[in-house]
Amino acid sequence: MTIGAVQPVPTVSWDGDAVVLIDQRLLPGRTVFLRCRTVARLADAIASLAVRGAPAIGIAAGYGAVLAALEAPRGRGFRTAVSAGLDLLARTRPTAVNLFHAIGVQRGILESCRSRDQAVEALLSSARRMHEEDLEASRKIGRLGAGLLPEGARVLTHCNAGGLATGGLGTALAVLFEAHSRGRLEKVFADETRPLLQGSRLTAWELSRAGIPVTVLPDSAAASLLRSGAVDAVVTGADRIARNGDVANKIGTYPLALAAAEAGVPFYIAAPVSTFDYGCPDGDSIPIEMRSGDELRKLGGRILAPSRAEVHNPAFDVTPARLVSAVILETGVAFPPLPRSLSKLTAQSVGATICRL
Amino acid sequence: MTIGAVQPVPTVSWDGDAVVLIDQRLLPGRTVFLRCRTVARLADAIASLAVRGAPAIGIAAGYGAVLAALEAPRGRGFRTAVSAGLDLLARTRPTAVNLFHAIGVQRGILESCRSRDQAVEALLSSARRMHEEDLEASRKIGRLGAGLLPEGARVLTHCNAGGLATGGLGTALAVLFEAHSRGRLEKVFADETRPLLQGSRLTAWELSRAGIPVTVLPDSAAASLLRSGAVDAVVTGADRIARNGDVANKIGTYPLALAAAEAGVPFYIAAPVSTFDYGCPDGDSIPIEMRSGDELRKLGGRILAPSRAEVHNPAFDVTPARLVSAVILETGVAFPPLPRSLSKLTAQSVGATICRL
Repeated sequence: MTIGAVQPVPTVSWDGDAVVLIDQRLLPGRTVFLRCRTVARLADAIASLAVRGAPAIGIAAGYGAVLAALEAPRGRGFRTAVSAGLDLLARTRPTAVNLFHAIGVQRGILESCRSRDQAVEALLSSARRMHEEDLEASRKIGRLGAGLLPEGARVLTHCNAGGLATGGLGTALAVLFEAHSRGRLEKVFADETRPLLQGSRLTAWELSRAGIPVTVLPDSAAASLLRSGAVDAVVTGADRIARNGDVANKIGTYPLALAAAEAGVPFYIAAPVSTFDYGCPDGDSIPIEMRSGDELRKLGGRILAPSRAEVHNPAFDVTPARLVSAVILETGVAFPPLPRSLSKLTAQSVGATICRL
Repeated sequence: MTIGAVQPVPTVSWDGDAVVLIDQRLLPGRTVFLRCRTVARLADAIASLAVRGAPAIGIAAGYGAVLAALEAPRGRGFRTAVSAGLDLLARTRPTAVNLFHAIGVQRGILESCRSRDQAVEALLSSARRMHEEDLEASRKIGRLGAGLLPEGARVLTHCNAGGLATGGLGTALAVLFEAHSRGRLEKVFADETRPLLQGSRLTAWELSRAGIPVTVLPDSAAASLLRSGAVDAVVTGADRIARNGDVANKIGTYPLALAAAEAGVPFYIAAPVSTFDYGCPDGDSIPIEMRSGDELRKLGGRILAPSRAEVHNPAFDVTPARLVSAVILETGVAFPPLPRSLSKLTAQSVGATICRL
């Protein structure tokens, strides 16, 4: 399953008895695959961002449920042991709702199984289905989003909402891959995305791999670039979308949306329906993960800040719905007023999720 | 000359036959002093940011004129040779107007001298006067700015507008040093300021040195911090202020001003009158320096972006006057409408500069 000539990235896969991840902490310098044979190892890989991106960690957790089932003892304690494994996965990252959706689905399947073997098989089928649905969602998001871009589009994106953040094809980058395959994309600007540089390390790598011209810039240079008229649209992913259309995404998305609004440049969010959280009325109710200060204190052995300084390092911010021009879902494009359009376009899936839970 | 208990930083000084600079590229890890005995060496130090900050490079260039005079041959070619040295200094950085002011003043003095010895003495006196005036301006800016902050102020700043950016006491940081000495400052948030991290490396170092609690954050986290209500005021420096009040300052200042306006937080610029450019009608006429892509591609030997990616790396952006709550000059605080208040508060100095040129 491709978009144009773009092959999926091997972000996450199941290989016999292990979840295999491309170690995103080492890209673009080194391509190393991590084999996680235990839930503990996988949880550590998610928490330390070897795999990241809301849809990707959802899929990884889906496969992680299979690891939990393989590790658990047969017999009476089986379900309790698997459930404890799922709890461990749920504690890795608080913001991306896809993680909790995937774990919820696997919990439901676990309940319906009568033996360990049946559970392993059913959980693996379910994880594979999530993975395939994600790839299919990416293709649909790509087609719908590409239709929003002008001929010869110059697009700015933030962080990495590519194949590495999903099952292999991306959300924001799926839009760009599709626009590129239609010959409508001139170039992409990628915010470097401090502190972990997912833009310069991962997005620039994915776009270069697909033959798309990419220019990296400091996050702080996006506003003046937008003001200069050099950008036709901004497209980013999302980690959680609240019922009113407020969007949690990588830190720096909110100031980008402010600058886009100021410059009159459309600001699009591309995300699968699984990113929508019917249980969150608005952005204030989305928990924001705070990460270690060491992400800002050092890089490659170099000290970047004095030890006495404290560090404020939130992983995400919330963009108010009023700054979002549209949300591109696999079920359609939600235009303002977002509370209504999102409710319509996510209704089926939410129903299904609630039903399965 | 101190502010409270804060001693000036040894940013730039004259020592017998050399301009001595603290090498800001190596802070906070190492404290190394560079002795520049030639104009070429000083020009390289300015271009490569061993010394940076609009007022500091103005003072360094002032002392650089003495180097040029010491290097030039006696006799007929003397003035031409000194002038060529000043030209070399003028080509180092295009945006900070203080550099051109300092060079203009030294050119005027050169014209009025009749011998090499007289020129060396007069240029050194003039450079020392610039340096002392800058320290005095910092103290005045500190006093005027501190009066704008509330009791227990929590202030956010960007890049480094401290002693390291000036003759030793700073502009934005002079305000914070003075507020601290009055017991009115609770804490400071310092944007790390990519790509060269002047905030986390230099501002956090200066504030820690002065005993002021400082928290470093990614540039992209400032907007959500402002929105959360955790900041009472933003204070930054400036590299050039246009006649209409538009301000060129370190890249990222413009999105910060947008976020401050959105959050209803006052946004102050602190700068000496020498930063004002009567010759620039507005921000569009300020030249913006573009720096090497390598500043984003690598850090401490680590590769941060694929080699095929281009890099957009402007050193500065322009904040429109309408987003500036006030400009704190040593001659007074300019409130909106800025074209009028700035004109009034900078008139004497501009007159003097024009006179001396």
